[in-house]
Amino acid sequence: MEISEKYKQELLESIPVVSEMNIEIVEVGPRKIVLKAPLKKNINYEGTAFGGSINTLAILSCYLLTHHIMKVNEVDFKSLVIQNSEINYLNPVDSDFEATAEIDEGSINTFIRMLKRRGTGRLSVESKISVNSDVRAIFNGRFVAS
Amino acid sequence: MEISEKYKQELLESIPVVSEMNIEIVEVGPRKIVLKAPLKKNINYEGTAFGGSINTLAILSCYLLTHHIMKVNEVDFKSLVIQNSEINYLNPVDSDFEATAEIDEGSINTFIRMLKRRGTGRLSVESKISVNSDVRAIFNGRFVAS
Repeated sequence: MEISEKYKQELLESIPVVSEMNIEIVEVGPRKIVLKAPLKKNINYEGTAFGGSINTLAILSCYLLTHHIMKVNEVDFKSLVIQNSEINYLNPVDSDFEATAEIDEGSINTFIRMLKRRGTGRLSVESKISVNSDVRAIFNGRFVAS
Repeated sequence: MEISEKYKQELLESIPVVSEMNIEIVEVGPRKIVLKAPLKKNINYEGTAFGGSINTLAILSCYLLTHHIMKVNEVDFKSLVIQNSEINYLNPVDSDFEATAEIDEGSINTFIRMLKRRGTGRLSVESKISVNSDVRAIFNGRFVAS
């Protein structure tokens, strides 16, 4: 809860455009983070969620999960950035939406080992965007920590 | 100039989160659109442009170019949405940045022909994110109009 609140503060205060999205942190676990955004603040011309907001929520869920994993594993890092990503918009997002970033334990272990050994680690994270548990978009991003 | 102003208004008024990005329309041409965003409003934890904002500016440049192409070619459409995209972040964006969406005439002609013939058209558009003409990220998105 304390970590979750810290993330929330970072999110809301550090990136001006993100603070406008009214993002809520639903869940923070060792291998999973869930964020939620309201449709109202992220709506497009057609009355559904704007693709840019969907992609941003997905980035943030993956970013925070990677950040959290390094904190939990007590790894020092100076920088964490996104290297590349792809997203498939499957169906319109017509209500408030969640981004669920998840990662398996094997990938985490490799990432942490590389970071400790070489000072640089790369991690691919997937995030699913859903409305009431129905998946509407799938995002994959690759992050680099050093 | 009139069309450019109309786009600007749509941008600023229709999507609440986009209005916070302080986007400026630099150029609107038949096969090219250039948008600009200030670093200050789109900054991340590390003092460079937030990946979400970079991706959003790229989406908007491609979206507006596709929209503009349909208007110029007098094609009726009810919906224009993004289907999928990918982005490669090459180097940090450490100043105000531009998104330049461009498309070749052959792709436009095929797109317009399909739209007129079948009522649905798909168009892949590339946008380059640059700082003082130096490319920092490359975005590719596929849009569907119907």
